[in-house]
Amino acid sequence: MDTKPLLSAIESELQRQISRLDASRTEPFHEMLTYHMGWTGEGAGPEATGKRIRPLLVLLCTSSCGADWESVLPAAAAVELVHNFSLVHDDIQDNSDKRRGRPTTWVKWGMPMAINVGDALFVMSNQAIIELKEKHPPETVVKAAEILHNTCLDLTRGQFMDMSFEERKDLAVEDYWPMVSGKTAALLSACCHIGALLGGGDEAKQDAYRAFGHYLGLTFQVQDDILGIWGDEALTGKSAASDLVEGKNSLPVLAGLGANGKFAARWKQGPIRADEVQELARVLAGEGGYETATAAAKQMTDLALMSLREADPQGEAGDALFALTDKLLKRSQ
Amino acid sequence: MDTKPLLSAIESELQRQISRLDASRTEPFHEMLTYHMGWTGEGAGPEATGKRIRPLLVLLCTSSCGADWESVLPAAAAVELVHNFSLVHDDIQDNSDKRRGRPTTWVKWGMPMAINVGDALFVMSNQAIIELKEKHPPETVVKAAEILHNTCLDLTRGQFMDMSFEERKDLAVEDYWPMVSGKTAALLSACCHIGALLGGGDEAKQDAYRAFGHYLGLTFQVQDDILGIWGDEALTGKSAASDLVEGKNSLPVLAGLGANGKFAARWKQGPIRADEVQELARVLAGEGGYETATAAAKQMTDLALMSLREADPQGEAGDALFALTDKLLKRSQ
Repeated sequence: MDTKPLLSAIESELQRQISRLDASRTEPFHEMLTYHMGWTGEGAGPEATGKRIRPLLVLLCTSSCGADWESVLPAAAAVELVHNFSLVHDDIQDNSDKRRGRPTTWVKWGMPMAINVGDALFVMSNQAIIELKEKHPPETVVKAAEILHNTCLDLTRGQFMDMSFEERKDLAVEDYWPMVSGKTAALLSACCHIGALLGGGDEAKQDAYRAFGHYLGLTFQVQDDILGIWGDEALTGKSAASDLVEGKNSLPVLAGLGANGKFAARWKQGPIRADEVQELARVLAGEGGYETATAAAKQMTDLALMSLREADPQGEAGDALFALTDKLLKRSQ
Repeated sequence: MDTKPLLSAIESELQRQISRLDASRTEPFHEMLTYHMGWTGEGAGPEATGKRIRPLLVLLCTSSCGADWESVLPAAAAVELVHNFSLVHDDIQDNSDKRRGRPTTWVKWGMPMAINVGDALFVMSNQAIIELKEKHPPETVVKAAEILHNTCLDLTRGQFMDMSFEERKDLAVEDYWPMVSGKTAALLSACCHIGALLGGGDEAKQDAYRAFGHYLGLTFQVQDDILGIWGDEALTGKSAASDLVEGKNSLPVLAGLGANGKFAARWKQGPIRADEVQELARVLAGEGGYETATAAAKQMTDLALMSLREADPQGEAGDALFALTDKLLKRSQ
């Protein structure tokens, strides 16, 4: 299945949702949102929009359950709007000045405006999910909204843990999973769950799709953690080992802390300098950090593929879902 | 009708909604929300919770349509959660360090955490409105959610205008109404609209209730503007004329700018010092600022009461609604 028409429809649907602010009194506000979405301003274009993996998952899950993907475009827009709301607020919270190679919203318009941009994207995700009522029965809309809202609470939980972990030096591997379940896996899981629900899948099928999204999200996060320390800079587009300098509580780092060796001793002393990352990454690998993380990535990949086979996605969309999964899970190679 | 049992039920419902975060890993996060809501921490108590006017309006509107107010408690919680989400983000955006006499959330836990507290309150308002499904048909739940979400977009529009107006010195009275419609009137209007919808009111009745809330909100805002310049400090709890020092684009100020006299000349020169507010408030009154604002307050009050009479609220709840309106609209005396 060629996913280009789906990606093009997603982009149009997102623009339609965000056009709610396209009125004379709020035009500059509208522009802040279209900039963040990658459509306008300096550096606008495909590089700036992101991959739209989440809305694509919604459409493919619906379609592989045998239903029409066009009828669920508002749900696809909703998950992408949630993702982008969280990015805008995350960039403020992390004090990040670049996103996809461009100045972040708060850098361009200031922190107060950027908070409001995130809030508006969040509101629009709620409006989008309710728009499903045009083509789906109200009890299904209520169920989809419920899944989305529960997921958003998971996002705030994950964000809380992430921020509160920054100050702690006593973290262990078991602290990792609840944090990344909220930060990354919850929304991918919701995409697949909502897609299957709207596609008419029964409870068991919905559960399998949801589990697939969950493990896909966890794999994705663990791979990101590995790349953030031992990745190829040319491939990832960010300097390898930068996660060490940023003090990120990634899985390899928590595994290294558990080993309580040279890495742990250095980590607890305070911020890592850029000139010591190469050596420290080597020490961490020697103390089991790399092995633990790659084993976890392998395990999560297996669980994701097992869940997807259980979901038994049908037709061309099913093939596309396996192909997308394959592409996502092998992105480090 | 004694509103105490309603207010007590509102408080319990809010606590139940917010208890979603009451788990071991998120307990400190839960505490940030209970602090903001006025239940825990220094200065906790009735003074710190606010008056819960919005949820009370929901319950009274439902009840005065002849339905059971207990079945709409989740909707009452939803509007109060929206209100509080906007307060938490507003305090960050305005750099306000006090709210109801207590340090604001961002002052206590930092800006990044406070953004997340606001986001969580917002998520919970969405979850609360969907909980109506336990006692209302799904099409009604979808309609209530739609009203709430549209209102939230109005809030972000109003917030955008408010923030972008800060830098402008060329504002006129006609810029005032779109801004305060979003900032204040939209949510009060939604409270009455949702209350009437859930109470089983027909379209015409819902429209009347909605209009009542809208004009009540506008009156409330204009009165607040008048008190912020010529109010009695002992009565309002904030220093009178502080709105002038803060540069707030209130209705009297915009009317004064329109008069283009001594007040406008001074306003355009830059920030007002505390030692000149008394004289400047006198100048503004002399140039029509007070008269314009009081005339507008009178007009909006008349429209609010006319709409309420058209809504024709029934029974004890109807009496309570008139009594509450009377109390709110006369608060400056």
